[in-house]
Amino acid sequence: MHDIIKDLNWRYATKKFDSSKNIKDEDFEVIKDSLRLVPTSYGLQPLKFIIVESPELRQELQTMSYNQSQIVDASHLIIICSYRDLNETHIDEYVANISSTRDVHEEMMKGYGDFMKLTISKMDDDQKFRWNKNQAYIALGQLIHTCATLKIDATPMEGFKAKDYDKLLGLRDQNLTASLVVPMGYRHEDDEAQHQKKVRKSQDDLFITA
Amino acid sequence: MHDIIKDLNWRYATKKFDSSKNIKDEDFEVIKDSLRLVPTSYGLQPLKFIIVESPELRQELQTMSYNQSQIVDASHLIIICSYRDLNETHIDEYVANISSTRDVHEEMMKGYGDFMKLTISKMDDDQKFRWNKNQAYIALGQLIHTCATLKIDATPMEGFKAKDYDKLLGLRDQNLTASLVVPMGYRHEDDEAQHQKKVRKSQDDLFITA
Repeated sequence: MHDIIKDLNWRYATKKFDSSKNIKDEDFEVIKDSLRLVPTSYGLQPLKFIIVESPELRQELQTMSYNQSQIVDASHLIIICSYRDLNETHIDEYVANISSTRDVHEEMMKGYGDFMKLTISKMDDDQKFRWNKNQAYIALGQLIHTCATLKIDATPMEGFKAKDYDKLLGLRDQNLTASLVVPMGYRHEDDEAQHQKKVRKSQDDLFITA
Repeated sequence: MHDIIKDLNWRYATKKFDSSKNIKDEDFEVIKDSLRLVPTSYGLQPLKFIIVESPELRQELQTMSYNQSQIVDASHLIIICSYRDLNETHIDEYVANISSTRDVHEEMMKGYGDFMKLTISKMDDDQKFRWNKNQAYIALGQLIHTCATLKIDATPMEGFKAKDYDKLLGLRDQNLTASLVVPMGYRHEDDEAQHQKKVRKSQDDLFITA
């Protein structure tokens, strides 16, 4: 069996983390760099990642997350946030980044910038919100894989009160909303969930050849 | 630099595939298994993956995809489809799968099934549609990472006419909609895009510590 499949089979949504085990700095750097490299629509990266270190904040967030223990027990906690809005300034900043990274005059990128501006001008607020939110899930998929490869446990969570998170962390004023929460670290040896067989549909159920 | 980061830096949204190079069966099996193992909300996997082999279909899909050459030139083409609706039958099937995989009596799983049914009963059609669609993006994130590790090129695409795809492939009648399209294979040596520096925000722009 390929290592990728071994790793993806090894991982599971950890229910109980061992709070005495911490992710090494060098591994966490890989995780951060993986998140930085996530591909997004047009490359716009309408995302921010909040690393919650404060134990007090973690405790408050736990109460907004149906009291799930992973929020406080995991070595690291990342909140994947999406932009609420996407406007011409974001596109101008992105074009400036392309221009400086690739050493191309901004004027050369004007066409691409205008094309992106036209695209977002056709979207209403809700469509932009959805589009940005989708990108958070790409980040989640890449993050889960990276963690599995590093043999770091991670639990993707949608079950939290996003509005309360946004309020506590002042996200709305920063054009952000909490999309996903991912506690990361090492499974507790008492976590029964690690012994349960992984449940997945069969390839026959999932794939159609056309 | 960690291999994960090398691989993620190596990948790029391939503009031109070498149509003479094909993904080996054993690699494609890893890709399929990776997609099968994608984590989803509650584990419901409201997804189907269409592998389009027919050259005629590929040509038709290309016309519905702003004529992008990758649709026909890539070794393999996967359409990531989301369920339109999620109903009690899907949950019953899932509970039956958990029950048989883990050899637990279905009666034992009734509480979890009822909990999921309650959750979806509170969602309107649009919320369920969004929720299902989000899961497709997790699959995309995991797929991109798996491909990069295998040194297989992949181009995530949102730029296609989903309604036309759905019609051509009869997806609506199967409770499906085309969410994402991913041509996969090997970059053409003429593809200039492979030489361009990757543009990403800095870690300082992306991460907040709280």
